[in-house]
Amino acid sequence: MTRTVVSSATKEVVIGFDQPFCIIGERINPTGRKKLAAEMAAGDYSTVEADALAQVAAGASMLDVNAGIPLADEPAILAESVKLVQSLTDVPLSIDSSIVEALARGLEVYQGKALVNSVTGEEERLESVLPLVRKYGAAVVAISNDETGISEDPDVRFAVAKTIVERAMDHGIPKEDVVVDPLVMPIGALGNAGKQVFHILRRLREELGVNSTCGASNISFGLPNRHALNSTFLAMAATAGMTSAIMNPLHEEEMSGIRAANVMLGNDPDCRRWITRYREPSEAGAEGGRRERRRRRG
Amino acid sequence: MTRTVVSSATKEVVIGFDQPFCIIGERINPTGRKKLAAEMAAGDYSTVEADALAQVAAGASMLDVNAGIPLADEPAILAESVKLVQSLTDVPLSIDSSIVEALARGLEVYQGKALVNSVTGEEERLESVLPLVRKYGAAVVAISNDETGISEDPDVRFAVAKTIVERAMDHGIPKEDVVVDPLVMPIGALGNAGKQVFHILRRLREELGVNSTCGASNISFGLPNRHALNSTFLAMAATAGMTSAIMNPLHEEEMSGIRAANVMLGNDPDCRRWITRYREPSEAGAEGGRRERRRRRG
Repeated sequence: MTRTVVSSATKEVVIGFDQPFCIIGERINPTGRKKLAAEMAAGDYSTVEADALAQVAAGASMLDVNAGIPLADEPAILAESVKLVQSLTDVPLSIDSSIVEALARGLEVYQGKALVNSVTGEEERLESVLPLVRKYGAAVVAISNDETGISEDPDVRFAVAKTIVERAMDHGIPKEDVVVDPLVMPIGALGNAGKQVFHILRRLREELGVNSTCGASNISFGLPNRHALNSTFLAMAATAGMTSAIMNPLHEEEMSGIRAANVMLGNDPDCRRWITRYREPSEAGAEGGRRERRRRRG
Repeated sequence: MTRTVVSSATKEVVIGFDQPFCIIGERINPTGRKKLAAEMAAGDYSTVEADALAQVAAGASMLDVNAGIPLADEPAILAESVKLVQSLTDVPLSIDSSIVEALARGLEVYQGKALVNSVTGEEERLESVLPLVRKYGAAVVAISNDETGISEDPDVRFAVAKTIVERAMDHGIPKEDVVVDPLVMPIGALGNAGKQVFHILRRLREELGVNSTCGASNISFGLPNRHALNSTFLAMAATAGMTSAIMNPLHEEEMSGIRAANVMLGNDPDCRRWITRYREPSEAGAEGGRRERRRRRG
């Protein structure tokens, strides 16, 4: 059974088919967040701090950290953010950049085994990112596009993923340290986006035996009631074999869908997490009362 | 592509992998509803009427009709209920009884092509129900248990389903008129109930090529926040190949999960149903306004 183990200095997280779904908090990312971008560029990390703590409190298993700010010193800001977030929380991080130098600086300061986000099937990316992943003994997100772009044929996207996994192995990176992102398209624009992704996920699980992730909210772009769509999509993707997602853990609908999917896939033993979370207050009170009485008798 | 076509006198419903999920309303069933049982036994069908109309208004594609009342004249009451419901709504019905004589009386008065609920793999049931299904040209729900009970091994349950499908074909009933119920166990008691069902559903779809159904709410029996579990379960089961469910359409959470699953599986063209349902009131108003203006100009 494939297990991707990532870690901080003190905590391990396992991504796998027999594990609770791995929730990678997406909030620490200035893309599309003007205020955050301005703050980070000016050396103000207060929102980064708040986002880190809030996401972990909401149940994130890992945090993605991205510092992609135009014209800013991304490598320095990313390294600073990684250090800061690691000083505040013990969850493992996904170090996220399209600039190889920024990934290198992030990895340099990172304590533990990080997830590098990301490599694609593009030759130049493969040969610059994979040596870095190997050097730091990290895991890596493999995005299934290459020089030709993103194919609408899911079997081509699968083939790109397979190429990346094979290349990673050539570089001495074990297969279980590659987490494939099959690329999720907005279903409002591409009606078969869901079926495509489920098809790739199944092949990734059954033929390639690798873990997977995605930017989940992309599926509902442009549609109303997005959280309900995201929630159902996450559970359906987990059914097809998806084991993690880069997502916003602050939305109860998405989290509830993932908790229910953990129950349904047998990854919440005795439904303990579900029951603890959703037990009626009166039952919780009664249970508390019973425990209280037992303690007094004991 | 497998298509199970059922009908009333005036309306056809198709169950299939490329169709919106078929919602079979479960409410007209006196099991566990003492007041309804007493009413039906006394010839008072007011709740049956109300339940029929409410479920169709809520989006049921079909209605299940059951008259299982201890010591009552079930065949007569079932026939009366079928006639009544058909006079009120045009959705096809699932005629539901464990008494063969009741199924026969229901089919006798039914207008259109009904779904008979159900036959099992028990020899005596096979040889009494299947000839009836054949006689009336109906479709039938095949429950995957037999004389030995309900196996915990999903492959045994699949084998029972296969046996029923083959026997149905021996009786001249085409495979596409058999809708298999893989049997859903409470996941609070049996932690792998979800994985079992998804496994059977996938084999039913890929190896046997048949439609499927289940009593969906059974999955969450005994657990808190049942509607959220049911909703996620339905979407996950649809991902694995389930094409219909006998369920309560009056719960928004379950219905929302099914609507989202229809979007994700490409069975809601252009997300039209989703958008119509969940569009923000202001957008709907703007759209209404645009339509209004077009009409005035036209």
